[in-house]
Amino acid sequence: MSEALRSHPRTALADRAAEADRADPLARVRDRFDLDDGVTYLDGNSLGALPRAVPDRVAHVIRHEWGRLRIRSWTESGWWTAPERVGDRIGPIVGAAPGQIVVGDSTSVNVFRALVSAVRLAQQDGPGRAEIVVDATTFPTDGYIAGSAARMTGCRLRSASPDDLAGVLGPATAAVLVNHVDYRTGRLWDLPEITGMVHAAGARVVWDLSHSAGALPVGLDEHGVDLAVGCTYKYLNGGPGAPSYVYVRADLLSRLDQPLPGWCSHAEPFAMESDYRAATGISRARAGTPEILSLLALDAALDVWDGVEIAAVRDKSLALTGFFVDCVTALLPSGRVTCATPTGERRGSQVSLRCAGAAGVMRRLIDRGVVGDFREPDILRFGFAPLYTRFADALHAAEVLAEVLAS
Amino acid sequence: MSEALRSHPRTALADRAAEADRADPLARVRDRFDLDDGVTYLDGNSLGALPRAVPDRVAHVIRHEWGRLRIRSWTESGWWTAPERVGDRIGPIVGAAPGQIVVGDSTSVNVFRALVSAVRLAQQDGPGRAEIVVDATTFPTDGYIAGSAARMTGCRLRSASPDDLAGVLGPATAAVLVNHVDYRTGRLWDLPEITGMVHAAGARVVWDLSHSAGALPVGLDEHGVDLAVGCTYKYLNGGPGAPSYVYVRADLLSRLDQPLPGWCSHAEPFAMESDYRAATGISRARAGTPEILSLLALDAALDVWDGVEIAAVRDKSLALTGFFVDCVTALLPSGRVTCATPTGERRGSQVSLRCAGAAGVMRRLIDRGVVGDFREPDILRFGFAPLYTRFADALHAAEVLAEVLAS
Repeated sequence: MSEALRSHPRTALADRAAEADRADPLARVRDRFDLDDGVTYLDGNSLGALPRAVPDRVAHVIRHEWGRLRIRSWTESGWWTAPERVGDRIGPIVGAAPGQIVVGDSTSVNVFRALVSAVRLAQQDGPGRAEIVVDATTFPTDGYIAGSAARMTGCRLRSASPDDLAGVLGPATAAVLVNHVDYRTGRLWDLPEITGMVHAAGARVVWDLSHSAGALPVGLDEHGVDLAVGCTYKYLNGGPGAPSYVYVRADLLSRLDQPLPGWCSHAEPFAMESDYRAATGISRARAGTPEILSLLALDAALDVWDGVEIAAVRDKSLALTGFFVDCVTALLPSGRVTCATPTGERRGSQVSLRCAGAAGVMRRLIDRGVVGDFREPDILRFGFAPLYTRFADALHAAEVLAEVLAS
Repeated sequence: MSEALRSHPRTALADRAAEADRADPLARVRDRFDLDDGVTYLDGNSLGALPRAVPDRVAHVIRHEWGRLRIRSWTESGWWTAPERVGDRIGPIVGAAPGQIVVGDSTSVNVFRALVSAVRLAQQDGPGRAEIVVDATTFPTDGYIAGSAARMTGCRLRSASPDDLAGVLGPATAAVLVNHVDYRTGRLWDLPEITGMVHAAGARVVWDLSHSAGALPVGLDEHGVDLAVGCTYKYLNGGPGAPSYVYVRADLLSRLDQPLPGWCSHAEPFAMESDYRAATGISRARAGTPEILSLLALDAALDVWDGVEIAAVRDKSLALTGFFVDCVTALLPSGRVTCATPTGERRGSQVSLRCAGAAGVMRRLIDRGVVGDFREPDILRFGFAPLYTRFADALHAAEVLAEVLAS
């Protein structure tokens, strides 16, 4: 921090914010969201803000497609193929060519689907692989589900930090489940490096992209990821509980042996055959009838990505989170918070501050119109959704946090 | 059929329809649905018609709960507890006291959840139970998923008609999966009798209520069913792909050991503990974050049940389907169709007619505004949703079918 910043911090920061917002190539994208209520919303890493296109689209789906066409909409309105079609719209955001992503079910269900599938792929590759390694820092559901996947595939479950994988991987490893960004600290793990390590050990990797997709480049195809899952209600703004997606690399699709082979994954669903024959292509990863209203809300929400390059999103994200840390450093009473989020390229798109009494502090922030969230045990979590967060928002949040901590 | 009916069939049938519609205690319920387009909709057994309360409710959820309250809606708008709350609204329709039904995931996923749980319950009860019996006539997804459940629990899979269960059940039986109503023929299986047989063999039963819930009394509690699943987009009118539900009998909940233990099924989800501790109560059957838009559309759709008794629904259903068969018998060219649906108490709420060239016949019916559906290989399927189908609709459908077959 410069001396000038120390002496006139608010003014200098306000100037920086104004200049950064003026120069922001994504500034126009904010208008695609309904943020008209003046709230400083820094919880888009938990539930993305409402894209303006969603209400009318869902109203049309309900009143016309369901209300008028009714059952005919499964074909005439494209409901039946929506899981694959919407999956292909997510593709560019996570670096996947068409035909490898399908949307449906919750992230928990897709973690189960992907992890069991990964174990079976590894066991198809060769004998002796009977261990699932799960990221010890992971969002809890991934660990719980990994436990069930291990139990049901006859594997051992082993927990390890992504930092320690080198000492854990070996000829017994079947599959490794890693979160791309740690939900608590915002730490970004090195996807190319870890994917390479898992492959070098002859195992399969499953990435959980819930806290990275839509905030930074993932490069699934480029880095040879085997399988991935992610939620769509955070940086993809699909709405509360919007359906999850699963990615299966193209060359693995014909070998995919997934544990939830519902009728939508059948080669000919409407033949109603009593014997199961898996579909070719990514439809093979489907299960039951998709929840169309939630799925088509997501479809409409993805319109905000028109013309947006994920590299620009990452640039803005790093600038925003870096600026917020600068504001916090300059404005907050000394010693009241410590930053739990790594710097620069090892950071996702959030800033987590450890703070005594964090739960109460967050309540007071929310009362003053600055919405982040609290995570056990002492974390103030601020998400910076690059499509709609301004540098001025980052400054304002730090200012209000400083007031709350000073009061 | 009376002689008078034979000689003046249309007039006599029209008189009967008018009288039955006048006397129908459920006639007023039709106004709760948007059926203003003049279509004769007999596919409510596949996708229920749109309840009028849904569009405004979903619009409010999107614009206000998501758009304004955003993340706060998980508590302030009751999103978090909606799966259990909506489950309790389904309870009276299927004869379940509160606290035993939770809504979420697709029927396919819930069949997997329920069947694996049933096997584990049976194995907790005693050793040697390693066989899953699945209804050979079942909707295909149930059979496919049962295959996966068997594989992943180390069970054998055995297929049998519900008629033949007596010869199949034994000390090796762990769990039996039966569809309450056959999706193809409309045959209703005897739930109390089959449940008793399964229990007498020391096994656990899972009922799939997709084609019965909302059309006839089920009596889950009364008949001591162990577990049940069902979809909500047929006679429950929840909308395309509306979420499924699972029932677990109260006394089994503390022993429930389900295969998809996502974070929403944890005793303290927001403690974010790395070790899994199952919730008490039906929340234990949850997995990941529920698809809120689809779930709350279902919630609004359930308003149509206010003041409706399921016994009256069954009375009307039997009268409607019986009347339709009478119309078909009286009006159709002789020998062109045969009825695949049993009579009276063994009938669900649909009538399936076997007919040469059924696919083409159904296309022509739909072109003339009579919407049923075609099922392989030769079935014309007509669903009679008792909440909104009129006797006049049944007559009209038979008349148009007669014209199509005569042309």
